[in-house]
Amino acid sequence: MTQLEMAGQGRVTEEMKLCAEKEGVSPEFIRRGVEEGSIVVVRNNRHTGIAPLAIGKGLRTKVNANLGTSRDHVDLEMELEKVRICTKAGADALMDLSTGGEIRAIRQAIVNASTMAVGTVPIYAAAAEALNSRKSIMEMTADEMFQAIEENGEDGVDFITVHCGVTRESVGRIAAQGRLLGIVSRGGSITARWMDYNDAENPLYAQYDRLLEIARRYDMVLSLGDGLRPGCLADATDRGQVQELIILGELCRRARARDVQVMIEGPGHVPYPQIEANIALQKSLCEGAPFYVLGPLPTDIAPGYDHITAAIGGALAGAAGADFLCYVTPSEHLCLPNLDDVHEGIVASRIAAHIADIAKGYPGAMEKDILMAKYRSEFNWNGQIDLSVDPDRSRARLERSETAKEEGCTMCGDLCAIKLGKKKAPC
Amino acid sequence: MTQLEMAGQGRVTEEMKLCAEKEGVSPEFIRRGVEEGSIVVVRNNRHTGIAPLAIGKGLRTKVNANLGTSRDHVDLEMELEKVRICTKAGADALMDLSTGGEIRAIRQAIVNASTMAVGTVPIYAAAAEALNSRKSIMEMTADEMFQAIEENGEDGVDFITVHCGVTRESVGRIAAQGRLLGIVSRGGSITARWMDYNDAENPLYAQYDRLLEIARRYDMVLSLGDGLRPGCLADATDRGQVQELIILGELCRRARARDVQVMIEGPGHVPYPQIEANIALQKSLCEGAPFYVLGPLPTDIAPGYDHITAAIGGALAGAAGADFLCYVTPSEHLCLPNLDDVHEGIVASRIAAHIADIAKGYPGAMEKDILMAKYRSEFNWNGQIDLSVDPDRSRARLERSETAKEEGCTMCGDLCAIKLGKKKAPC
Repeated sequence: MTQLEMAGQGRVTEEMKLCAEKEGVSPEFIRRGVEEGSIVVVRNNRHTGIAPLAIGKGLRTKVNANLGTSRDHVDLEMELEKVRICTKAGADALMDLSTGGEIRAIRQAIVNASTMAVGTVPIYAAAAEALNSRKSIMEMTADEMFQAIEENGEDGVDFITVHCGVTRESVGRIAAQGRLLGIVSRGGSITARWMDYNDAENPLYAQYDRLLEIARRYDMVLSLGDGLRPGCLADATDRGQVQELIILGELCRRARARDVQVMIEGPGHVPYPQIEANIALQKSLCEGAPFYVLGPLPTDIAPGYDHITAAIGGALAGAAGADFLCYVTPSEHLCLPNLDDVHEGIVASRIAAHIADIAKGYPGAMEKDILMAKYRSEFNWNGQIDLSVDPDRSRARLERSETAKEEGCTMCGDLCAIKLGKKKAPC
Repeated sequence: MTQLEMAGQGRVTEEMKLCAEKEGVSPEFIRRGVEEGSIVVVRNNRHTGIAPLAIGKGLRTKVNANLGTSRDHVDLEMELEKVRICTKAGADALMDLSTGGEIRAIRQAIVNASTMAVGTVPIYAAAAEALNSRKSIMEMTADEMFQAIEENGEDGVDFITVHCGVTRESVGRIAAQGRLLGIVSRGGSITARWMDYNDAENPLYAQYDRLLEIARRYDMVLSLGDGLRPGCLADATDRGQVQELIILGELCRRARARDVQVMIEGPGHVPYPQIEANIALQKSLCEGAPFYVLGPLPTDIAPGYDHITAAIGGALAGAAGADFLCYVTPSEHLCLPNLDDVHEGIVASRIAAHIADIAKGYPGAMEKDILMAKYRSEFNWNGQIDLSVDPDRSRARLERSETAKEEGCTMCGDLCAIKLGKKKAPC
């Protein structure tokens, strides 16, 4: 039975209890959220080596890190090192987006190495498989697509991105309106081309029940992908994107009816004033399902710094109700991220998520900031470092101060405002 | 005559014309903004070697970088190198906050080296002077404070932070309400202690007309400082902070009546949901004066990454109407920023400012993003790099891609969505 099925029967599962403890809420709060669909408890029923992860309304905003090989660059050791960095830097989940090398073996190694929930995009594996066997992606069969999904379930993958909303209807609206950058989601692009070449509906939509059966068997959470997300600010919130979201809302309800847990993926490249509207729209169209956003990126002109751009967008999205932030690294739009990039991306997203959690009133979030202020007032440098989002980084910088660990730092020296405020005698 | 005086007489000055050209607005737009106080044209009338800088309503959001020696660390060459980095990284103004070494000589060297507007906090020089002459800061005289301001005017400083709103009334409200971190502005802290020790009103408030006379003589823009800004989220938007802002609103009107241009400084450490309220409050209480914010920082727990935190807050503040963002570097709260920190801080603030400019509908802002999308659709890598916020950085990362400068990058390889969308033949 899936978590959703048990929640519907009023049963509080062991997984819900574990999540409740981590989140500081009651198990019943988690159960009710799962039942109504505002919370997902993420863990493949074969992946019992990790703690389950709850994502959704009333919970801490979570951060996902993407990693994986590309077709030009395959280095399993580096990817496994990225998994370790994800843990150390404080990601809540990771997605293996590998498209190069022995994809299934890489996936199994990553699932095995990860202490956190693992997501994938099964169509990548199916497409890469097609390319590896020297046939065209266009010649993939529906069976091969579902086979890839099944294998992900077998391998213990906890959540999968499936671009079920890329349909003739939604793609047609993209074409009718016109776009500067067309379809920029890889899965969306593969699917749309497949549909065009084969003159057929998207199998993941046409045979959605088949997908639900697989997801249900492993209690894999469906992350209904936004294959038609905008690739630039100018394309944001267009009719194709919103059409897809409407369809995802319908598919969300169908999944719940089959006891399959669902979250919804969102953009992407979005002008700042449209971010809150995108969250409100998703919450309404998808009946409160958890929202998993990529960034969002409120400008296109900062390649090399897209982790900062994504943090700016992610804080606003999170404060408006997004539940799960997918990180973006400084290498986005330029090259495959290296180890440092993964670290920088995670920390930037965690900052955004924490700012959102304070805005959401998530219990315990503001308390951290109050404690930091207290440590600052006491010149408790060790306390500040331990509480900081990246203790190694803050410690290294503090040690640049000649006066580190005394009162004050080189920034203000003996004109430190806090010191001035404390002295009783004239200074 | 000051810019404001001439604007009031309906005269469009050469400075206004230069600013109008840079901003893409009409000279009359600038003149009217200066007259009504929503725009300041920043340039000391002795500092004719630089282009004047317009800040305010309807104009591009500007970025300031702080630099300067501290009492523990004096290295003029490094500070001058920071000035060069400010130019290269695209700051609009810089503030010399030196408190160590030969402060006046350092200031003159920085004004001389800078191609952009220079601001200072004259009370730092006065306080450091007092410490250097081995007397207590508390024994500074009002004359010495005004002398420091006069010298800044003589040296060609374009705008000065003056903490005139730190008064018995506002400080009294801080004390009455209580704060976790007290007063964290150095200037505010020095002033409050001076007032307490001398049992006297703040000379910059009590003798405000004397300050206005000096500012008027050099057409120095007064940046009315928020000496009582909160030092942590928990202290934000408290009665002392708002009391000071009310007083600054009154002083703003008095300055305008004497033809002295004014902008207002704002926080600081502010929870995300209070940022827009802080902007609205300032615009209302200070009758539309340009707002110059420090960050804001919507969390306290990210030392080492405060440039990202400030970019998150700055984008929201800018979108809500803040006109001028003071950068924060990754070393904030830990140590004196080094050269890299200055660069990182400026770029992060520029990203926030640009995102705000798109939100504000500033002409030409969104057009950059549209052009970037066009370059991406064309795989025009050189165009993308040249248009990016930091071409050196984006170029260096792109060159990590094995397939750099061909179509696609290592991130997606031959599964690039844009390439897939372009191919006519099956892939």
